[in-house]
Parts: sequence; structure tokens; C-alpha cells
Amino acid sequence: MNAPHLDVEQVEAANTAFYEALEEGDFEKVSEFWLTPSDLGVDESYHDPADAGVVSCVHPGWPVLTGRGEVLRSYALIMANTDYIQFFLTDVHVSVTGDTALVTCTENILSGGPAPDGGEELGPLVGQLVVATNTFRRTPAGWKLWSHHASPVLAETEDEDGEDTPP
Amino acid sequence: MNAPHLDVEQVEAANTAFYEALEEGDFEKVSEFWLTPSDLGVDESYHDPADAGVVSCVHPGWPVLTGRGEVLRSYALIMANTDYIQFFLTDVHVSVTGDTALVTCTENILSGGPAPDGGEELGPLVGQLVVATNTFRRTPAGWKLWSHHASPVLAETEDEDGEDTPP
Repeated sequence: MNAPHLDVEQVEAANTAFYEALEEGDFEKVSEFWLTPSDLGVDESYHDPADAGVVSCVHPGWPVLTGRGEVLRSYALIMANTDYIQFFLTDVHVSVTGDTALVTCTENILSGGPAPDGGEELGPLVGQLVVATNTFRRTPAGWKLWSHHASPVLAETEDEDGEDTPP
Repeated sequence: MNAPHLDVEQVEAANTAFYEALEEGDFEKVSEFWLTPSDLGVDESYHDPADAGVVSCVHPGWPVLTGRGEVLRSYALIMANTDYIQFFLTDVHVSVTGDTALVTCTENILSGGPAPDGGEELGPLVGQLVVATNTFRRTPAGWKLWSHHASPVLAETEDEDGEDTPP
């Protein structure tokens, strides 16, 4: 297999593994998928004017979160409020250019929070149609997430004449 | 000025200029800001398994658009339905790693469509709070957009205890 094929396979595997870590509620594993400046050989004690490797994350409907502190805290918060989550990924597209990879995909999400009465049962399950753009960076430890941006799809994707603008 | 500072300034200028081209409704200029595989020295007649430099775009509430054809058609459509648009960018953050740059920003948008009666007046102006993640790639012709993902902010960004999860 040649190098471009291999890159695409590795990036797609990293993307899938990231969502699996979310499904498992494995905070440690989720944290490991996020890039650190030291993954890039950037000295973290020095203030880098280019903020190389500084991560950002947008959850559906949320403002931008910047830096590992904010981003990882958001995942801890989401995990604390989610008892069950499953991602069915469709329309996965990978574009690799040098040491950066862009993945776009549709996250068909099924999730449920803790039962309202604190009992054994799950809260009501909710389905969500979300699209994501994930930017990965090649590191000695594999492909790591530099940015995740997810947003709700509010409009019909199919239309007879294919000309309608979503709102 | 050292190289990282210069990169950040150039990326920020490219990001600003892209939004100005949108404000001006200048379709040609908007098109020029989008990366082509040939900007990266990729032969477009050869099928590249890594789809290097293949662009993607998500407008607020829309599904993912992939490739220059779909992306540029969406801008033509939006421009045809928008008589007036202004972007007030805030919270601009740039992270440059090698030849790739990530820009996150808040797009405070004010826009209006054509008058409903086809008259001289603007349609009603609408304000929108949108956050964007823009991925730029360094090319011999300057920094070009590889990906744009914009999404509506549906929740409060400030909260007294800073602990609330947006929906």
C-alpha cells in the first residue's frame, strides 16, 4: 500500500477510535487523542506567538473552547451528564495534506442522560443529527486532534430541485 | 519581527480579507481564497487517494459540502439571496503549526435579503451569533482556506458559576 493510502487509513482509524473512547466514557483515552504542543516538539514553557498545537473545540450549539484545559473540562462535563452515547458515523471524508488531516463526517448520535429520579433506568434517549470537521496532526505518537467542530444540521439535506438554501 | 509572529499576522489578514470579500459580495475574490490541489503542487488529473487539498465547508445549520464545486456553488447561492451582510469578528484566535493554520472566531453577523416586493429597500435585517473554525494552508500565493465550519451559538456563553452545559 502506498503512503497516501496508509495515511488515510490511519487517520480514519484515529477518528473512529476517538468516537469509541467517547462512547466508552473513557476520559483518559479521550484526553490522549488531543494534541499537546509537546507532541509537536514545541517547548511549552516558552510562549509561542503562533500558539502551535493549541487545540480548539466546538460542541453543537456551543461557543468556541480554546486550549486543553477548557476542552477537556467540557468533555468531563458532558460525560458526567451522559449515561449513554452512541455515534453512527456516516459520510466520512478524509483529506491529508503533509502532516495535517481534515476529516468531515456526519455523527448520527443517540444519547441519554441519567434517569431524572436517580434510579437505575436511563433518561429518555435523544437522537441528534450533527456534522463535524476534525483536524488531526501527525505526531510521533500517531494522529492527534488539533480541532473538533461539531454543529447541528437544522435543514433538509435532500431537496427535489437541489436548490434550496437551508436557513 | 520573527517568523511565528509574521505567520500569525498573515493568517489573520487572510481571514479578515476573506470575510471582507463576502461583505462585498465579490464571488471571484471569495473563490480565490479557497485552496486548490494545484496550490499544493498536486496534479489534479491524477486521483490522489489522500484527497490532498480537497476543501470542505459547513454553513450554520447546513450539512457538510465537499470539493470546490459544491462549496463555491453554496456561496453563489448565499450571495444571490443576500443583499447586505456584515461580519463583526471577535475572539479571533490563530494557531499555526508548520504550513497549516487554524483560526477560530466569533462571527457577529448582520444580514438582510432582497426586499420581499422586489423594491429598492432591503429585507428585514437579521442578527446571528455564529462561531467558525477556519483551516488555512500555506501556498506560494498566500494562505488559502482548506476548510470552513460555522455554526450557530444556541446557548448562553456566560454563566455565574461557569458550570452550565449548553443544550
